[in-house]
Amino acid sequence: MLQFRGLTVVPDPRPQRRARLLRALAAHKADAIVVSHLPNVRYLSGFTGSNGLWLLTPRAAILFTDPRYDIQASQECDCKVKVVAGSVWTSAVDEVKRRRVGRLALEAAHVRFEQWSAVASSLGRGVKLAPVKDLVEGLRAVKSAGEIEAIRRSVALCSRAYESAIAQVKPGMTEFEVAAALDHAMRLLGAEGPAFETIVAAGRRSALPHARPTAARLKANQLLLVDMGANLDGYASDMTRVSHLGRPGRRARSLYQAVLEAQLAGIGAVRPGALCRDVDAAARKALRRSRLDKFFTHSTGHGLGLEIHESPRLGAKVETPLEPGMVVTVEPGVYQPEFGGIRIEDTVLVTETGVEVLTPTPKDFLVIAS
Amino acid sequence: MLQFRGLTVVPDPRPQRRARLLRALAAHKADAIVVSHLPNVRYLSGFTGSNGLWLLTPRAAILFTDPRYDIQASQECDCKVKVVAGSVWTSAVDEVKRRRVGRLALEAAHVRFEQWSAVASSLGRGVKLAPVKDLVEGLRAVKSAGEIEAIRRSVALCSRAYESAIAQVKPGMTEFEVAAALDHAMRLLGAEGPAFETIVAAGRRSALPHARPTAARLKANQLLLVDMGANLDGYASDMTRVSHLGRPGRRARSLYQAVLEAQLAGIGAVRPGALCRDVDAAARKALRRSRLDKFFTHSTGHGLGLEIHESPRLGAKVETPLEPGMVVTVEPGVYQPEFGGIRIEDTVLVTETGVEVLTPTPKDFLVIAS
Repeated sequence: MLQFRGLTVVPDPRPQRRARLLRALAAHKADAIVVSHLPNVRYLSGFTGSNGLWLLTPRAAILFTDPRYDIQASQECDCKVKVVAGSVWTSAVDEVKRRRVGRLALEAAHVRFEQWSAVASSLGRGVKLAPVKDLVEGLRAVKSAGEIEAIRRSVALCSRAYESAIAQVKPGMTEFEVAAALDHAMRLLGAEGPAFETIVAAGRRSALPHARPTAARLKANQLLLVDMGANLDGYASDMTRVSHLGRPGRRARSLYQAVLEAQLAGIGAVRPGALCRDVDAAARKALRRSRLDKFFTHSTGHGLGLEIHESPRLGAKVETPLEPGMVVTVEPGVYQPEFGGIRIEDTVLVTETGVEVLTPTPKDFLVIAS
Repeated sequence: MLQFRGLTVVPDPRPQRRARLLRALAAHKADAIVVSHLPNVRYLSGFTGSNGLWLLTPRAAILFTDPRYDIQASQECDCKVKVVAGSVWTSAVDEVKRRRVGRLALEAAHVRFEQWSAVASSLGRGVKLAPVKDLVEGLRAVKSAGEIEAIRRSVALCSRAYESAIAQVKPGMTEFEVAAALDHAMRLLGAEGPAFETIVAAGRRSALPHARPTAARLKANQLLLVDMGANLDGYASDMTRVSHLGRPGRRARSLYQAVLEAQLAGIGAVRPGALCRDVDAAARKALRRSRLDKFFTHSTGHGLGLEIHESPRLGAKVETPLEPGMVVTVEPGVYQPEFGGIRIEDTVLVTETGVEVLTPTPKDFLVIAS
């Protein structure tokens, strides 16, 4: 089956995903899997509703959902759809019994204990349950052409929203109002919404890596950190930029320059075959030159796609090699509680030969008139 | 401990909540519980961060979180706080071992199978795990004075946002733009965000009870259904109103009138001691008079508070008696796929003697100039 997107013909990647999943299941000696984590269900079947289970056996792929999604599911899915009035779990378990599955894989990191126990007791001794972890998430780490396009659009939208909203920012606005303006700009450009709660942190609050916007008003001579992402057609983007209200002083400029160099060093280390920890090490090493590495208190980045945090994580101990088609953030930061924090983050694509920075927003230290 | 909110002194309800929880645990023959569902953690401890576990034994209450929430947790919680660098689960389990707990309750509907298994194997045979369900959710169904105040504010904000945004609506706008305007209005009034994805459905799409806004443009002579709620200081609100672009015809007016009568009948059935199903039956009976009950395809309402869907559910088979302090929605609807749908929803409080409608927005059939 081919899907037409603009002028490009993108081959439907779902049959290939299912073939890879079946091979992964075989390695776990499982005959079948019931996928319940919704981003995984969407990835494998196309279904975007809020209630669905997806069963895969070597002979069949079936989506179970409820009557609200009857029409939608048959439009979205390329597999068989069963619309059931009662619990989707009950129907999926019945199907598993009918198909004489010997060993059924379930997603141990997602299925709740209560649900797991109910499935186990309903299946009885005939069917063994195999707890599997990161099986579908592992497949999702390398993006298909269509997914890369979707992330590209989400990244572009996020940047346009940032650029239009930041142009309206001035002293006297609250962090809260800035966040609302950014979110509204994303919506007006067509996003379903933000991919995560938009971070707007001014002055010293920029030193809190997970600050939530407050009613604090922006003042002259403050740093302004914005960390934002859009959800567009289900795909996330993620970007951090720091600007300054009024001309930044020497300390702010030198911190900014150090973080920018670390970020560029991180990006420079992204290529197929490099390990995740290599990228982290490159950013950290650049900060060590200015003795700022001890203020860099988180890992360098993470994959994104249907979720805002996906594999791989660019952490100091992660030995996963990067592969073409992976999409990750590169976001070193320096946080000095008595002064403030600076983080610079782009979303980048691992290409066949190196890296492509998807985020188009300039990384100059932006000065907001105050 | 007393908290000052404006001029009223609201006694801190947390010690009482914990005493009630200990009694409920005793009924399950459990000595302790590790609470992991974040709205439950917040309810019991005050902690609003995104990573926390809360341990309760007859002698101690301890919140476990990570260094990001060090300061915040000690400000928010009235219990002991342990900030741990590694996994909060590992630390909580170590604490359970030290305290010689015999039987530990865990929330079976929330803890993932993988986590449950890890806890079980780490605790070994000395400690039995007791799967409990709806224990804290059950306590949360009856709201404290402070919670009722918080919901009142959230409901008032939602209504103000609706009224300001709906005044800007005109033909030619997309459903998407209307949703963005509603969400932006909530944010500007101080909400953290919408309590759920705002539903805006025009024309026949109003017949889909869970419609997501689309790029469809509003036209004259259409129904416009808006279902929205705010999140304010953690508390949800929920309201549905239907308006009409241009003067509604006879069919729309008569459907509207029937749904309004059903909604008023439902509200009229809310009082302490009434069963949930009685409220549902009252709304359904009113629709039966105009032979519309078969188009009312969902239950009549649900509790709300820290989450948008809480106990009790006002369903046809739910025998839970209403109690003073419960806050529920009353939202009958009629959906005719070839014509459209009408739903009217208020948030109401069960009082000592009857009911108080919290939603201030009028229920006249609003006409939007077209």
